[in-house]
Amino acid sequence: MRLSSRVQNINDGGSDGWEVFYRARALKAAGEKVIELTIGEHDIGTAPDILDAMHRSAQGGHTGYAEVPGIKALRDKVADRFQARSGVETGRDNVLITAGGQAALFATHLACCDPGDRALFIDPYYVTYPGTIRAGGAVPVPVQARPEAGFQPRAADIDAAAEGARSLLINTPNNPAGVVYSRDTLEGIAGVVKDHDMWLISDEVYDSQIWQGDHLSPRALPGMAERTLVIGSMSKSHAMTGSRLGWIIGPAEAIAPLADLAITTNYGVPGFIQDAALYALNQGEAAEETIAAPFRRRREKALQILAGQNAVKAVHPDGAMYLLLDIRATGLSGDGFANALLDARRIAVMPGESFGQAAAGHVRVAMTVADDLFCDALETLVGFAGELARENMADAG
Amino acid sequence: MRLSSRVQNINDGGSDGWEVFYRARALKAAGEKVIELTIGEHDIGTAPDILDAMHRSAQGGHTGYAEVPGIKALRDKVADRFQARSGVETGRDNVLITAGGQAALFATHLACCDPGDRALFIDPYYVTYPGTIRAGGAVPVPVQARPEAGFQPRAADIDAAAEGARSLLINTPNNPAGVVYSRDTLEGIAGVVKDHDMWLISDEVYDSQIWQGDHLSPRALPGMAERTLVIGSMSKSHAMTGSRLGWIIGPAEAIAPLADLAITTNYGVPGFIQDAALYALNQGEAAEETIAAPFRRRREKALQILAGQNAVKAVHPDGAMYLLLDIRATGLSGDGFANALLDARRIAVMPGESFGQAAAGHVRVAMTVADDLFCDALETLVGFAGELARENMADAG
Repeated sequence: MRLSSRVQNINDGGSDGWEVFYRARALKAAGEKVIELTIGEHDIGTAPDILDAMHRSAQGGHTGYAEVPGIKALRDKVADRFQARSGVETGRDNVLITAGGQAALFATHLACCDPGDRALFIDPYYVTYPGTIRAGGAVPVPVQARPEAGFQPRAADIDAAAEGARSLLINTPNNPAGVVYSRDTLEGIAGVVKDHDMWLISDEVYDSQIWQGDHLSPRALPGMAERTLVIGSMSKSHAMTGSRLGWIIGPAEAIAPLADLAITTNYGVPGFIQDAALYALNQGEAAEETIAAPFRRRREKALQILAGQNAVKAVHPDGAMYLLLDIRATGLSGDGFANALLDARRIAVMPGESFGQAAAGHVRVAMTVADDLFCDALETLVGFAGELARENMADAG
Repeated sequence: MRLSSRVQNINDGGSDGWEVFYRARALKAAGEKVIELTIGEHDIGTAPDILDAMHRSAQGGHTGYAEVPGIKALRDKVADRFQARSGVETGRDNVLITAGGQAALFATHLACCDPGDRALFIDPYYVTYPGTIRAGGAVPVPVQARPEAGFQPRAADIDAAAEGARSLLINTPNNPAGVVYSRDTLEGIAGVVKDHDMWLISDEVYDSQIWQGDHLSPRALPGMAERTLVIGSMSKSHAMTGSRLGWIIGPAEAIAPLADLAITTNYGVPGFIQDAALYALNQGEAAEETIAAPFRRRREKALQILAGQNAVKAVHPDGAMYLLLDIRATGLSGDGFANALLDARRIAVMPGESFGQAAAGHVRVAMTVADDLFCDALETLVGFAGELARENMADAG
C-alpha cells in the first residue's frame, strides 16, 4: 500500500552521515569499549526533586486531560522567563506548551508553510530540520553559513534564496557549530525576513548554554515580535530530554491557531510533566547554571588541550554542549576522519557532513561524558589528527 | 502575518455545537450547580500503582530520550495484547507508540493522504476528526451512518463517496453513538476499501468498553492487515487520559516510515510514561474491566430508567462510555434540547449536532459522574423530555 509522498520523502534517500554513530553502537553491542561523543544528551538524568514534583502532581490528581495550550501557570512562567531575559513584553497568550522542541519545530513549519512552499534553514543544522520541513509537505532550502565567517550566516546569502520562501529557521546558540549569533548577524537576518515578508522561526533551545558573548533573541529586534516564533525547551536547560516539554513563543494571533493545531496533533501535553517543568523553572537561573556547568568546565579544558597545535581547530566554541572541530589539515573529510578515529582509537564523534554541507571537513564532539574521560578522548583525537596532518603534509611535500 | 491555509482552516468556521459545553462551564464558574455529562473523561484519576510505576521508572533513570518508535517491551506488549484479542499475528515491528490516540489520528492521516486528497470518515464522529484531516492538508469527507440503521455505516454509502479517496476512518466501539460495528458492517467496509485501494484507519480506543456483542477489529478480516492502521490508547482503558500514550498497529512497511514521521513530530514519547503503560498493561484484562465497570453499571441503570417511556430512546448502547439519546419526540433539535435542559435543569449534555449531521435530533450523555448523580440527572432529563414531548404532541394535534 502506497503512503503519502511527503511521508515517504522525509528522509531524502541520501547517505545521512550517521553510519559512524550506528557503527559505534554496533561495536559497543559487540562488547568493545567505545567512547561516544555523539549525542546531545547530558551525562546526568533529570534531577530527583523535579521528578518528585512530577510524582506529587500525578498523585494529587493531575492525570486527566490538561488544557491543550498548556496550563496557565506554566505559560505565565515561560512568558516571564522570556520577558526577563529579552525585555520583550510577553504574556500567557504568547505561549503554547508543546511536546518538546521537536514538536514546536514541526508545528511552526506546518503553520507557516503550505505544501510546496519554500522553507529556508541555515546549514549546518540540527539533523531533523529538513525532514521536519518535508514531513509537513514544504520544501527545505538550506542556506550555507561559511566556516570563514565563523558560521555566522550572511544576510546576502539568505536574501539570494528568499524569493517565494515563507519561513526561515535559525538556531542560536547553534548546534552543531557552537556559534552564538551576533547582533549584526541577527539584524541582517531581521532585515531579510522583513523584506520578504517571511516568518522567522528561532530555535533557542540552547539559550542557557552561553560560554562567551550574550544570547540575543531576534524577537527582541524592532518589528520582529510580530513575525518571530521562538522555540524553547526544558531538554537542554534542565536535563529533561525525555520529558518532551517545550514551547513556542510568538504573537497571540499565531499562538491561538497553533493551539487549534495542537488539539489535532496530540491534544496537549501531560499535566504532571507541565507541573514538573513549572517546578523546575521556579528554581530560577541558578538551577540552569548548575546544569550548564559541566559543559562550561569541559569547554575550558578543551581549549587548553587544543592550544599549541594546528591539526585541529575549534570553531568559536561560544555556546551549546558541542565543539565543532575543523580537521581539514588532516586531508580527510569529516566523515573519513570520524570513521578512521573510530577504527583506530574507538572514539565516536559526528562527521560535520551529518549536519549539511557547510560543516564538511569538521567533526562535532559532544561534551557529554565525565571530565576525565572527555579530556583523555580529546587528547587522543588531537594526537590522532596530528599524525594524520603530518602524513598529509608529507604527502603534499 | 499570514499563517498557512491548512492551519487557518482547521476549524471550518461554522458553529461547532459546543456552545452548550462552554455555557455550562461559564455557569459553573459563576457559582451555579451544573451537572456535566459532556466530556469523555472518567470520574477517577489514574490508579496510584500505575503512577508509582512511573515514578520508579523516572527515579531509576529513564529520563533521557527514549527510543522514538517506543521502547521494545511496550511495543511487544501492545502487539501481544492485539494478537491475543484479534488472532492476527502481530509483532514489535507492527507497533508504533504515539503521544495518545490523537497523535495517532494525525500521523496516520498525514501518512495516508497527500495534500488535497480526500479522506473519508463516518458521521457521527469524534469532534477532532475533520480538523485533524484538515490540519494535514487533506479534505475531510463525511459519510453519514443512519439512525434507522442503528448508526451502522452502509457499504453503499461509503462506496458512493470513495472515488479518489485515499483513506477511510472508522471508530468502533463508536463515540458518540455507542454502537459496536457488526461483522456484516465491517465486511462491507472491507470490501469497499479494497475495491478502491484505500487505507482503513480504525480507531479502536474504546475496545475495552463493550457492553453487548463483541469487538471485532477489521485488521482481522481477510486481506485487511496490509491496509489497516489500528489506533489504540491507554486513555479510556486505563483512565490515563492525561498521560497521552497511544499506538498505531499496522503493516511493518507502514510503521517504519511512521516512526520516521515521529522523529519529526515529537521525537518520541517519555520513557517513564511508556514504563507506566507497560506496567498497566501487564496487570491484564481484569484491570481493564475494573476501569470499565462503572460505565457498564451506569448503562444498566440507564436502561431501567429509559424503560417504559417513549420521549427518549437510547440508540443501541452497546459500547463506550456514552449514551446517544434520540430526543426527536420533543420536536427539538439536539442543540435546542441541550440548551433548554441546561437552562431549565442545569444539566449539560452534548448536542448530537456537535458530532456531525447524522446525529441531529440526538444528545450524547457521558456516563462519567457517580452513579446516584448520574441516575438523578438522567431521570430529570427523561422527565423534561417527556414534558416537551407532550407539549409537542399537543401542538401537533
